[in-house]
Amino acid sequence: MTFSAPAIPDISQTELSTRLQQKLDNKTKPLGSLGRIEALAQRIGLILGTETPALESPQLVVFAADHGLAARGVSAFPSDVTWQMVENFLSGGAAVSVLARQHGIGLTVVDCGVQHDFAPRPGLLDRKIAAGTADALEGQAMTEAQCDQALSQGAQLLSNLPGNALLLGEMGIGNTSAASLLMSRLAGLDIVDCTGAGTGLDAEAVQRKIGVLRQVLARHAHAQTPLQALQAFGGFEIATMVGAVLQAAHERRVVVVDGFIASAAVLVAGAIQSNVLQRCVFAHRSGERGHALMLAHLKAEPLLDLGLRLGEGSGAAMAWPLLQSACAILSQMASFESAGVSRQDEANPNPNPIAA
Amino acid sequence: MTFSAPAIPDISQTELSTRLQQKLDNKTKPLGSLGRIEALAQRIGLILGTETPALESPQLVVFAADHGLAARGVSAFPSDVTWQMVENFLSGGAAVSVLARQHGIGLTVVDCGVQHDFAPRPGLLDRKIAAGTADALEGQAMTEAQCDQALSQGAQLLSNLPGNALLLGEMGIGNTSAASLLMSRLAGLDIVDCTGAGTGLDAEAVQRKIGVLRQVLARHAHAQTPLQALQAFGGFEIATMVGAVLQAAHERRVVVVDGFIASAAVLVAGAIQSNVLQRCVFAHRSGERGHALMLAHLKAEPLLDLGLRLGEGSGAAMAWPLLQSACAILSQMASFESAGVSRQDEANPNPNPIAA
Repeated sequence: MTFSAPAIPDISQTELSTRLQQKLDNKTKPLGSLGRIEALAQRIGLILGTETPALESPQLVVFAADHGLAARGVSAFPSDVTWQMVENFLSGGAAVSVLARQHGIGLTVVDCGVQHDFAPRPGLLDRKIAAGTADALEGQAMTEAQCDQALSQGAQLLSNLPGNALLLGEMGIGNTSAASLLMSRLAGLDIVDCTGAGTGLDAEAVQRKIGVLRQVLARHAHAQTPLQALQAFGGFEIATMVGAVLQAAHERRVVVVDGFIASAAVLVAGAIQSNVLQRCVFAHRSGERGHALMLAHLKAEPLLDLGLRLGEGSGAAMAWPLLQSACAILSQMASFESAGVSRQDEANPNPNPIAA
Repeated sequence: MTFSAPAIPDISQTELSTRLQQKLDNKTKPLGSLGRIEALAQRIGLILGTETPALESPQLVVFAADHGLAARGVSAFPSDVTWQMVENFLSGGAAVSVLARQHGIGLTVVDCGVQHDFAPRPGLLDRKIAAGTADALEGQAMTEAQCDQALSQGAQLLSNLPGNALLLGEMGIGNTSAASLLMSRLAGLDIVDCTGAGTGLDAEAVQRKIGVLRQVLARHAHAQTPLQALQAFGGFEIATMVGAVLQAAHERRVVVVDGFIASAAVLVAGAIQSNVLQRCVFAHRSGERGHALMLAHLKAEPLLDLGLRLGEGSGAAMAWPLLQSACAILSQMASFESAGVSRQDEANPNPNPIAA
């Protein structure tokens, strides 16, 4: 393994945090009345290192790859859907295409290992490691060299993106299985609690999926470190995403985490460098079973809870305007002084005017 | 009372609803994977009466007025803050000003009864009924004629607004008390469960507030119909909002409901004409005690749950992009056919490929 995680210093600066809170408290509103948007403004301020954070040129990256394990019937859709959806992203018809357009978010699709030959075109990056991972029930999903390559490519492609915010998206038939495996191993949770219906398995098929995943975990009982687990379970899109997340955190970009698979990548990245989590904003709690528990493990409070379970980065894109709102509140709202509004302090000269 | 509520026909058309669901199910995504955004798309489609709903020229209206009951110490802020905040809305420094600007939402402030003389200016409508309601502990907050005037003015000003969506906002020191009183009376709930800290009362002051509100309820034990309760408890901004909501529902506009006070107005409007609720999208669950219970009473599932308790329409504005997303999904996303993506049906030719 030649990839080495970049330095990610602690940014929980109490001094800037205090100044951000004072600024929020001086805005013309009752104390704390913007609820979690205030915590969001705090977080973005700390990531960007300023009292007046401004989000610039947000980039949503859809990391796409196929999974050898998909042949084991762990998904309701065939692997061909991976490349078909990549075409759909590029032609603008997928949910994430629509949402990125709505919010002016740049959209890049990265072929990290799709089982298909794409013609080169704008918006598609070729970072293909192989045509899908190997079957994790047979052996490791990827070799050490492949894992290394994915991490490095993720870091490098992130560095080349403009802006100061990365929204995580992914596509890969079979990748909820990889995410469940990573979660079970790295969070130390039973696979039953980490496994859901993915794109739409029925109850019986979920039981079969759990059975397969349990076998995979047993097969790779010795894969205990984050990178060993990543190699054992895959996938190429998750490994590439881990590299991008580590680099984004190093560069103090805001990382907007989508659903179950993106959270699994952040789980891996955070297990490598825990300060990664300081740079993350969790967009939503997915309807996929396991995500709520994974968020709890990460001590993450997501912004939205709308039963989304589509992936692609669709939840990250939907949450995006809330990040913009948090910044606008900090930079544009008037203070009590500037607006000449009376404060609560002066408010109740007679705190009990009721003769009662 | 000369105001008569306009006709609000039932729009739960099963035929259009079926077509909307078919359209959503044909989009390139696993069935139901956009969660509550799909229900939102359904609702907007039914309100606007089309499979391709398009939101046009959204209007956020801040209804503002003062409350006689404020002199009883039911708020942490003095009544002067009402007019000071109106000035702040108009000069662009309030939270709702910032958020409306962010999302391109038209902002109108209506003086329904603020205790202050405003100079005329763009963005401010003078619909002042009186300089604040009367003290509801002494008598009715408003006369029947005043209530009538407020309802009529609300309906009329709504009719003059462009667009097909109304976002509800309000400002009025003391108006959580009026909302709690309306909720307790019309939903038949104990005032303790309907009363919160408003702009920031401490626990002791909340107990005093509850005591005052209990006296007010006893004083007006005979005010049992929605309009009697509205007259008894106020306020002018709530009554004007009720008129606007009824008219908006009549005109099949999408009504985006903000927090506790806006929900109380919808509670009144819905008690007058229950079909009003079909036209409403509930933006968020407020941090104000009582709102969760009020939403449950209205069988409403709000979009956001961020602990907001600012009012002004700030939560409605923050939820707005989700409504736009729901429409964009319907109109812009590709279908399985148009994108050439394989369906789930064809997906699992061998549903149990694991030899196991």
